[in-house]
This record gives sequence, structure tokens and C-alpha cells, in this order.
Amino acid sequence: MIKTKATGPIPAGYDAIDGELAIGGQKCSALIAENGSPLFVYSKSRLDDRMAQLRAAMPDGLDLHYAMKANPFPPVLRHMVALADGIDIASGGELQMALEAGAAPEHISFAGPGKREEELEQAIQAGVTINIESPGECDRALKIGERLGKKPRLAIRVNPDFDLKGSGMKMGGGAKPFGMDIELVAPTAKKILDAGADWRGFHIFAGSQALSADAIIDTQAQTLDLAARLATEIGQAPAHVNLGGGFGIPYFPGDEQLDIAKVGAALGDQLAQLPKILSATQFAIELGRYLVGEAGVYLTRIVDRKQSQGQIFLVTDGGLHHQLAASGNFGTVVRRNYPAAIASRFSEEPAETVSIVGCLCTPLDRLSDNAAMPEASVGDIVAIFCAGAYGATASPANFLGQGPATELLVD
Amino acid sequence: MIKTKATGPIPAGYDAIDGELAIGGQKCSALIAENGSPLFVYSKSRLDDRMAQLRAAMPDGLDLHYAMKANPFPPVLRHMVALADGIDIASGGELQMALEAGAAPEHISFAGPGKREEELEQAIQAGVTINIESPGECDRALKIGERLGKKPRLAIRVNPDFDLKGSGMKMGGGAKPFGMDIELVAPTAKKILDAGADWRGFHIFAGSQALSADAIIDTQAQTLDLAARLATEIGQAPAHVNLGGGFGIPYFPGDEQLDIAKVGAALGDQLAQLPKILSATQFAIELGRYLVGEAGVYLTRIVDRKQSQGQIFLVTDGGLHHQLAASGNFGTVVRRNYPAAIASRFSEEPAETVSIVGCLCTPLDRLSDNAAMPEASVGDIVAIFCAGAYGATASPANFLGQGPATELLVD
Repeated sequence: MIKTKATGPIPAGYDAIDGELAIGGQKCSALIAENGSPLFVYSKSRLDDRMAQLRAAMPDGLDLHYAMKANPFPPVLRHMVALADGIDIASGGELQMALEAGAAPEHISFAGPGKREEELEQAIQAGVTINIESPGECDRALKIGERLGKKPRLAIRVNPDFDLKGSGMKMGGGAKPFGMDIELVAPTAKKILDAGADWRGFHIFAGSQALSADAIIDTQAQTLDLAARLATEIGQAPAHVNLGGGFGIPYFPGDEQLDIAKVGAALGDQLAQLPKILSATQFAIELGRYLVGEAGVYLTRIVDRKQSQGQIFLVTDGGLHHQLAASGNFGTVVRRNYPAAIASRFSEEPAETVSIVGCLCTPLDRLSDNAAMPEASVGDIVAIFCAGAYGATASPANFLGQGPATELLVD
Repeated sequence: MIKTKATGPIPAGYDAIDGELAIGGQKCSALIAENGSPLFVYSKSRLDDRMAQLRAAMPDGLDLHYAMKANPFPPVLRHMVALADGIDIASGGELQMALEAGAAPEHISFAGPGKREEELEQAIQAGVTINIESPGECDRALKIGERLGKKPRLAIRVNPDFDLKGSGMKMGGGAKPFGMDIELVAPTAKKILDAGADWRGFHIFAGSQALSADAIIDTQAQTLDLAARLATEIGQAPAHVNLGGGFGIPYFPGDEQLDIAKVGAALGDQLAQLPKILSATQFAIELGRYLVGEAGVYLTRIVDRKQSQGQIFLVTDGGLHHQLAASGNFGTVVRRNYPAAIASRFSEEPAETVSIVGCLCTPLDRLSDNAAMPEASVGDIVAIFCAGAYGATASPANFLGQGPATELLVD
């Protein structure tokens, strides 16, 4: 008897038409017939709804940034440029894409521990804010600004002395390659001010993918406190403070939705009681996965159904080359099942225990392990949910000569 | 005090010119100056030497196949097509590349658990051998052959009832999506023969990346025994048996080179004592990583040197988007350091403990953790060794808008 393993929770609001999973009003079989398989489908209305919910929950006046690394597919990015108050980029390549998607340079900020000379130059030319990650990088940016005769817009990325509890990835609270340790911040800010550059404030990012409102509230309070202390030390109010993100989405069995109403209310209280030095500061939060993750579904067709030693394998034409994280091979120690379904039998009840694998010739290529599913056969379509963030671009598309999946933004 | 972690063993034969790592007689600084950074450099002479050593060690008449999934860079592939007796492919994309690289269709064989209809058709049209992975796939291939009026060349991929002990990836010895369980093999072979298709024999792959000669010898003996049993059950001699691979290379501290002389001698003995039904069979082994892994080096320039809480970080312009496995995020549970060096100071002694990280804005992007290195600064070049296999194409090149590294085959 094979033990069934649970799959993660399917995001609310995915409905069936004629028994099939439908996205943006289109049945998965029609989407595949028209666009081929495998296919990433992103939903505009889900992006809109998520942003509207977030705006309603967050305090007025707080800027909501989109970290485009989560999903840089141009139609998604253009849509997010229109919805968000700012775009956060992580490379010269992303800068190019953000500009092409219509983002205004003054609403773009660039973080990343290893910016090349050319990238700094490109960013200063374009007039975007650079989140400076080290004293050495500060010197290089100032020198480039001087050479170009342009005033660089420089914020300081701070390595906070705390982390985001329970976060999937800790970005603070220890020796880190990101940002600069607290004692380096004031001297670097003063250097920027002395050089006549435009000091934009702070970028403080303590972690990502947290589902606990209390943990995020606690981190935001510490972040505001740290920003106030640093501003006082520098003796100047920061124009802008990016409070980081950390808002997670449920991927795995037992995960629950983050309570954004609670986070928003607490942040509102905190912003209402700011020390004077931060009273004119513009605050932002930076979200990637939270904005786009649940708006995407990965669809892949079953090309074989086979049994081995009593276990059933559904072999798909997709795999880890598009869904590395879902296969459990990207930043996770113990593999757990993402939310998954037989999309073409979305209304049917589970009838058997199956493993859903990709087409790659490696045991790593597993999309769902011993999951309870309706009985499916060759031609049926598998859906992996939570595919809107860190899917297509966070996977090795060319592995085994496969190439990228098609991506599609629907209504 | 930071505890230094060991790095894996640098493959023998990498020498210095003027104190710098040289590959194919060219200094790493010259290679980077001419081709940019980051850069994969593959060495023709190392490919030649490895194949010559292997031919000398293996029994006469054994075919040596190259599994191109390890490194499909066209110049490397062309070189390997000339050196190897056969090319093993894993997709329609790889079939196209193999043909373009000059491989003869009769020397190509195609394995993979999720072959699409189009891929089967493409393979049958081209006349390459298909390693059939399930009874369902057998039916599809026969039907396509009939429709095209072409006699398909079909071998049967067997899910062996044993695994390769100590292998990095087990491909047999349990319920698997690869190949077919033993009891399905004879009926499927008979179906192929009855349909008048060209039954090519067996493909039996029990695991990969093993460093123990004894484990490989044991597996090869079991594989030959299984092939004989299956042939007897079918009542016909297989034209060809692919014994799989499994030859590993040392990546991590404490790993030692596989003793191929011992493996070759044992395999020679086994082949000399074959049962009669296998006496006319052509045998092959299928190697990817073993042939090309140590012939490649990934070079990446240091763009920042920073300290955080007493730890030194060297930040490079490369990272996990080119070297996912070296970052510890591809199929490994515990991260260990690949062989690494400051290539531009290859002759210098270690002087400090540093972490070498990539340019991506994620804590996953670590190339070497607390390693002992000579003192390096911005502009120095880092080398990650064992980058010839499962590097460029097994990494998410487009993550964070970075794009692929340049690849180069030198003498």
C-alpha cells in the first residue's frame, strides 16, 4: 500500500468549466490546444485582485513595489508597472526590461550584491536609484557619476541586525553578502552627501516568504526603528525607506494565507507614531512572489502513464526545466508537494495515488510525489499552481535540450 | 574565528603560467579579456586525454558512448562525436543538435521517460534507436513507424531490480519512471519482433556518479546477468546492450578518482565469460559527466570584496544562474564546496578564509563557503572546476535577467 502524500493548498478562486480547470475564462484544454504544452498561464484579473486587496489592507500613502525578479515575462511586467508604485530590479538586464515595460526611471530601484561597472553606469545614466551594497560600490558609483557628469541617486542597502523569523530565506541577522553592516551606513551616507550625490535613503530587507503576520509586524517595527536610528546618526532625514517584503504565499500542506489585514493595521499604527526624523519619509514595501505567485499556473500534458512495482507514474511533457522549485530542487531541504491537480478533470474526486514526473531523464524531475488524483491518462493535463513567481526564469530551460515553455497572460 | 571549510580536489593537470591558471595554454586573464566574464572554458586536450585513458582501460570492442546531456555546447559536442562510438540523447532538441554535430543516426540512441509523439516521429524518421520506456510508448512507436512506412529501431530500457551502490543518483532498484519493470521486457520485445520492427536490444542504467570501482563492477556484472536472463526469456540474442554508465568524478573534499583500470579489467573478464546468447552482442557504456566534467572550468570576475561581521565575501559577476550544482541547489541535501581557486593567483598560497558568492540577490547564490584562498580583490578571477558537465545548461541562465555565460572550447 502506497502512502499518499498531501499536496499544497490550491489558491482560492480557480474554478472549473465543463469539469476542467479554467483560467481567465478559458478551459485548460483550449489554452493548451491554442498555445501548446507546457504552458505558463498568468491571470490579469488575479494580479489586479491581489493588488487591490493589498492596497485596501495597507496604510494609505505606503508605496507598493513590484520586485520583477519574481516574474519578468514582458506582458506581466507591463501590467505590474501599471499597478505598482515602483519596480525593483536586480540586474542591468532587468533595468532594460523595466524601461521597455514603461517604468519611469524615478520609480525604479536597483539592488544586487554584484553590480558590474557597466550596470552601475547604465543605472546612473538612466537615473534610477541604486541600492548601494558596500563602501566599495559607493566609491565606484560616485566615480562613475563624476565621469558621466550625472548626479547618482543612491540609497543604502542595510544588512539589518535582525532577521525575519520563520522566513523561507533570511536576508539579515548575520554575516551577509547583501547590503552593509550597520556601522558602515552613516559614514557611507555622509560620503554620498559630501559628494553632492542624491542620497535617497535606505533599503532594508530582512527576509522573504514568511506566512506569519506577527513575524512581519515585528520585523517592520524593527526596520522602522533601525531607519530612525540610522537617520539620526547621519543627521538627515531619508527621502525614502524600502521596508523590504517578506510576504509569503502558501505552497505546502498546512501552509495558511498571510493575514495582510493584520500586517496593514499594525504598519498603519507604526507609521502614525514615527519619530520626527522620519515624518516626511516616503515608505515602500517590496513584494514579488506575493503579487504574482498565485496568479500563475503551469500546465503540462501527460505523455505516458506507466506502472512500476505497483506505483503509478504520470509522465508529462514538462518538468523541472520549467518548475525547478516545484521539483524540490531549489533552496529546499525536504521535498514537499506543491499544489497540483489533473486540470482536465478538475471537478473529479481523487481516485488513485500517483507520482507526476517530468520528461527529463533524471530522478530529480518529480512534480508531485504520491499524490491523490482523479484517474488520468495520456492526453490529460496536469496543473501545478503557485507557478507565477520563480517559475520560468528560475528554472534551467535548456536542460536536456528542452527549451523554454510558452508563457501567456490571460484576462 | 571562522571555521574554514575544505574545497573539493582540483583535477590534476591544471597548471599556472605567470602564476595564473592557464587552460589550453592561455592564461585566465587573457581568456576573460578576450571573451568576457563569466566564461566556461572547455579543453580539447583534456577531452582527448580522458577518452584515450578510458579506451586504454576498457576492454577492446566495448563501445564508448557520450551522453550529450552533460554538455551539449556545439563545439564540445562536435569534438565528442568524433571521439565517441555513439551519442546518447534525451530529447528531440538533442537529436537535432546531435545530427547537426555530425553524428550518424545509427550511432544515436534516444532515452527519456516522456517522449512526445513528435519526438518519436522525428527519431523514427531519422533512423535513430529509441530506448522504449513503457509498453505504451512501444505501441505509439510501432504505430508511428507503420504510418511513416519506416521500420523503427527500438531497444528496451529496463528498470533493473538492483541499483548502483553509492551512486549520486539511483536509476534502478525500486519503482521508477525510467524504463520498464523486468516482467514487462520480454512481452514488449516479442511485440516489437512480431511487428517486424528492428529490436536493438537493451538499455540498462542503474545509477550515476559513483566513485567506487567495486560498486560499478558489481553493477556491470548484474547488468550482464540481467541481459542474459532477458534474452533467454525472449529467445533471441540482443544486437546491442547499453550497460549504462555511473562513472563519477570527484567533486568534494575526500572524493577520490574512480579506478577505471580496475573497472575495465573486471569488465573484460566478464565479457570473456559471456553466456552464449550474448556472444554476438555489441556492448556499450554510456558516460557524460565522466568524459567532460573535469575538462571544464567556470571563470568569473570578482566585482566586490566586502566584510560583514568579520567575514569576507568575494562577490563575483557569475553565480548559480550558470553553476546551480556548485551552489549546492541541484540534487544535493547538504551543500559542500566544489573545487575552486583564485585563478588569477593560482600559484599563491591560501592567506584568508572567504566566501565566494554570485551576483544574484539571493542567499542561495554561494559558490564557495568559507574557503581558504589567497588574498583577492576586485578584478581577480575565480575558477570553479568540474564545470564541464551539468553546468551551463543545468542552470537557470535567465534568472534575475542575467542571461547565459559565454562558452569556449580551447585546445
